[in-house]
Amino acid sequence: MAKPSAPGLHIRKWDAGRWTEAPDAVVTEEPLQLMLDGAPLSVVMRTPGQDVELALGLFYAEGITRSLGEIRSIRMSAEAGESESKIEVDASIVESNHLDVLIAGKPRRKPERSMLASSACGVCGAVLIEDLRRGLAKLGRGPSVDSSLLPRLVERLRSGQGVFERTGGLHAAGLFTSLGEEICVREDIGRHNAVDKVVGRMLLDGRLPTSDAILVVSGRAGYEIVQKAITAGIPVVAAVGAPSSLAVALAREFQQTLVGFLRGERFNVYSGPERLTS
Amino acid sequence: MAKPSAPGLHIRKWDAGRWTEAPDAVVTEEPLQLMLDGAPLSVVMRTPGQDVELALGLFYAEGITRSLGEIRSIRMSAEAGESESKIEVDASIVESNHLDVLIAGKPRRKPERSMLASSACGVCGAVLIEDLRRGLAKLGRGPSVDSSLLPRLVERLRSGQGVFERTGGLHAAGLFTSLGEEICVREDIGRHNAVDKVVGRMLLDGRLPTSDAILVVSGRAGYEIVQKAITAGIPVVAAVGAPSSLAVALAREFQQTLVGFLRGERFNVYSGPERLTS
Repeated sequence: MAKPSAPGLHIRKWDAGRWTEAPDAVVTEEPLQLMLDGAPLSVVMRTPGQDVELALGLFYAEGITRSLGEIRSIRMSAEAGESESKIEVDASIVESNHLDVLIAGKPRRKPERSMLASSACGVCGAVLIEDLRRGLAKLGRGPSVDSSLLPRLVERLRSGQGVFERTGGLHAAGLFTSLGEEICVREDIGRHNAVDKVVGRMLLDGRLPTSDAILVVSGRAGYEIVQKAITAGIPVVAAVGAPSSLAVALAREFQQTLVGFLRGERFNVYSGPERLTS
Repeated sequence: MAKPSAPGLHIRKWDAGRWTEAPDAVVTEEPLQLMLDGAPLSVVMRTPGQDVELALGLFYAEGITRSLGEIRSIRMSAEAGESESKIEVDASIVESNHLDVLIAGKPRRKPERSMLASSACGVCGAVLIEDLRRGLAKLGRGPSVDSSLLPRLVERLRSGQGVFERTGGLHAAGLFTSLGEEICVREDIGRHNAVDKVVGRMLLDGRLPTSDAILVVSGRAGYEIVQKAITAGIPVVAAVGAPSSLAVALAREFQQTLVGFLRGERFNVYSGPERLTS
């Protein structure tokens, strides 16, 4: 299932007026068809691999399923088409009032619900601004984290990123314990997808919500990354890139520690510095 | 309306074991409520500014409106809430069979349609994989472009990016003529939003589809960037970052020139090299 690159691509290269031809690898992006109880729900652009984790992580983030017990079955199927293959994940879930309440804050038939579809997307389920904070709860204090640990975690995230080295196009998300033990690292062309795959893995392992965890992401920390982490109970988020104003506001409101610009031996703390010891 | 940063933020900085405190600026990300004929359609995370352009660009990309003539009115309203303000764009559009056909390939009531909601999102409207190519047409040959022009365009994109310098968190999209004249440059926390704002501006100016244009983007070229550019008729897309496999496949299928890793005096051509002269 894992196709980390698109081998055999032939491209032209320009360098200050000189043309050359060369083989090249680009990161694989392919559509995944998400189905709920046999009805089309959405299309997700993603890097193939861990598709069930991705689907479960998305369902968790969107409040469609919050425990394995709500899932009756998950079926994956593949179909070879004219130009590309079609991979489908169909989840059958247990009906509950819980589901009705969580979908956009009011009862709604599932197949009509909007959801994530892009490799770079996060909160496409929201139809109303009021939906954005649904289901979020303040995080507990949780364990403290040694500040000097954070730069090490980025190094470990990078060392596991073979495809990024070759294509420059993959994001990574890694979950570590407060002592720096690796729980799970996932890659995807979409930075939200990488987080969804991590959360989906944790759901499969029965470890959600998780309070002893640090989420490290290779890209920026926008609203959705922080929202997904709060939903999963993760008290510390550290991003290599910049945070957004809304990410900072959300992290402060829900008492999450938010670190940005984690590069070399430096980082900035935008929210919750009390969890970081020196 | 334009709030390019969030002044007054106070953060802690870690540098190899030393803590300091400092004021900091982060890029503004705020939700925009999109309405269609008075009904909630979706929430878009975006950097405030050019909200009407953004809404129109999104509607254009999603096939909801393809000409100004289909739009009866656009109303913007702002409401101050407890924690943040709520900005709303409500478009009233002319009903047509055209619309019914274009929405997910079958007649559907508009308010139930899924759409973009994230600052990083592109194709959230798609419920079925078959929807992804709806409405796309092969691009004509259009004008040739002098290869040595492309590095200059990135410099001009960067020179207009004041907020990026301060926050490291903004993407830019610029549209230029084949001779390098600037048509329109827009910034946003979301790379798709920046492209939507450019396309929305072109729609407002009655210049769509446009065949004499080069789209330069500061980030990566994923599927959605290429799809939005093909939809707008733009024959050349050049990205500072990496392309994805699906972006390359789509550009080749619809005869678009796709350039990636446009850095310094170098770039790679993944599709349509015949438009680039040396």
